[in-house]
Amino acid sequence: MSLNNILDQPLTSWMKDPGPDNDIVLSSRIRLARNIGVIPFPNRATEEQLNQVVETVKNSVGDLTKETGTAFMFLDLDKISPLERFVLVEKHLISPVHAQEAKYRGLLTGADGVVSIMVNEEDHLRAQVILPGLQLEEAWQVANSVDDILEAKMDFAFSERQGYLTSCPTNVGSGLRASVMLHLPALVITNQIGRVLSAISQLGLAVRGLYGEGSEAIGNIYQISNQMTLGFAEREIVENLQSVAGQIVEQERLARDYLFKNNNEQLADRVFRAYGILSCARIVSSQEAMRLLSDVRLGVDLGIIQEIDPKIFNELLVKTRPNFLQKIAHRDLDAMGRDMMRAEIIRQTIKRQT
Amino acid sequence: MSLNNILDQPLTSWMKDPGPDNDIVLSSRIRLARNIGVIPFPNRATEEQLNQVVETVKNSVGDLTKETGTAFMFLDLDKISPLERFVLVEKHLISPVHAQEAKYRGLLTGADGVVSIMVNEEDHLRAQVILPGLQLEEAWQVANSVDDILEAKMDFAFSERQGYLTSCPTNVGSGLRASVMLHLPALVITNQIGRVLSAISQLGLAVRGLYGEGSEAIGNIYQISNQMTLGFAEREIVENLQSVAGQIVEQERLARDYLFKNNNEQLADRVFRAYGILSCARIVSSQEAMRLLSDVRLGVDLGIIQEIDPKIFNELLVKTRPNFLQKIAHRDLDAMGRDMMRAEIIRQTIKRQT
Repeated sequence: MSLNNILDQPLTSWMKDPGPDNDIVLSSRIRLARNIGVIPFPNRATEEQLNQVVETVKNSVGDLTKETGTAFMFLDLDKISPLERFVLVEKHLISPVHAQEAKYRGLLTGADGVVSIMVNEEDHLRAQVILPGLQLEEAWQVANSVDDILEAKMDFAFSERQGYLTSCPTNVGSGLRASVMLHLPALVITNQIGRVLSAISQLGLAVRGLYGEGSEAIGNIYQISNQMTLGFAEREIVENLQSVAGQIVEQERLARDYLFKNNNEQLADRVFRAYGILSCARIVSSQEAMRLLSDVRLGVDLGIIQEIDPKIFNELLVKTRPNFLQKIAHRDLDAMGRDMMRAEIIRQTIKRQT
Repeated sequence: MSLNNILDQPLTSWMKDPGPDNDIVLSSRIRLARNIGVIPFPNRATEEQLNQVVETVKNSVGDLTKETGTAFMFLDLDKISPLERFVLVEKHLISPVHAQEAKYRGLLTGADGVVSIMVNEEDHLRAQVILPGLQLEEAWQVANSVDDILEAKMDFAFSERQGYLTSCPTNVGSGLRASVMLHLPALVITNQIGRVLSAISQLGLAVRGLYGEGSEAIGNIYQISNQMTLGFAEREIVENLQSVAGQIVEQERLARDYLFKNNNEQLADRVFRAYGILSCARIVSSQEAMRLLSDVRLGVDLGIIQEIDPKIFNELLVKTRPNFLQKIAHRDLDAMGRDMMRAEIIRQTIKRQT
């Protein structure tokens, strides 16, 4: 694995490998927030202390590689360009906040992108595990083993009464956030999504768009996560979200069945039009791409469109993001240039299939 | 030639044969209004008199076939179904008014559809000549020879002072209407069409949509014709319209050049999207079909789309009309059924090409 692999290849494990219910659940994600006990949180730490965190984490690369059987590498964010940092965001390897600043910030990541650890974001360590489909339990087990490997190298800030201590109080306790990314086009088309999202909120879960907080749910992709960490056992958080996600999957399936049986011609027209436009258009905005890709993916999932591999949906979700496009183009692109490049990449990807 | 040929084949000469400027001028048409002197106009004639007209016209079939070298046939409108009559309208062989009633009404037509004569519409005879591209002069010559053949068989109502007498005063004189059907997408896209149409009106010419009076200019197709017949020599009418049409063609070419040079990417996106939708959609309304076919034809004319024969534009203009669709389907179709059938025929026609 090299840096170029990480930056140039759009597909990480969750996008290309099989997983349960992955026609609806794009990915399951577990995130752990951890801090080294003797060093202040990043927003209070000196440069020397931040550097100490980086060095401590670098020391665990060998252990992670050995014990997980996957090659790990450490990436200093100030050794890559701002564009490349934002490509990492688009690949869901780091957060938008982490890409804003580079000094003493890092990313520790496995070759397959399943495990990635942000260093000196809001907390000293933010470990993330992403698996394809609905596999929260499995992701949690991986996260636990990573946690154990790291904890053998460093003492985490921990209070018997409060649990793991974190920079932001909402993460105190388990330090665990579990989330699932769901593609829910049929619930949107049948106007049931409002009811479903409102029920989710009442269960104390948060709903966001594809790229984290504040991002709109374009492409009918919803990210659902636990809000609270304090006072809940990790198992409880994971099992609760797994169960809710399972119920949403059930609702989406019912809505898809309904559409397929009752509006088959309109549905076929909708998904084939999206396919026709993506196969031919010369200028496609980011939002339109997401919307049309969502329609095509629904058509593929329902067997209406047969010549397309559903994986290209996940691949194109990442490949058509603004920074990734510029990385492929090897140059700065204005908005129009990106929309043209996006259209070209989509056409090529579809053509490769057919 | 059989009746089924006339009804089932969408292509008549003007749609498939080459002609000058036929990237912009779809067809040139000359129409002559004539009445038999001893018989009252159709709206005043008795059934017996109308039948007398029909019999007189039938007697000229042999002469027309012999002298033009093209097989002619006479069709009694009351021997075909209302649906079939409206197919003849969609093929531009008879007027919508002529299709409304069938008794004692007829159509005398040549195998290639260049010459067709409505019998007992508003006048006893309405002879029409349609040629592909800008060929008004040529169409007029054909019309003259047909007029001579007919006049040898019957005496037309004619006054030395007023010229040919017709049922409606606007046709008195030469009885000649000349018209051209123009595809003007670039003038529409560049917002110049209003100025052009207003100039045309000031020259005493009338502008209509594809299917005659009152029809909207969908698909960017405009039919331009002379308004006045009395007091103008036939040559004057024909030369005037030929010259105006030539100027509009020039304007449309300039607008196409402008678009091609200045908005090439937007233009390519527009025509390829239209192509993508027509290649894939499952439900397409008549208006949308015209709009998208116009875009595709522009793309073909400008060499942006290369795999398509421009002729399919003309073919699909007729094949996708509501009555023609039902004729192809061999059954009644509701609006949704027609929109699905239309989409299917468009997809097949494009696929046949690529």
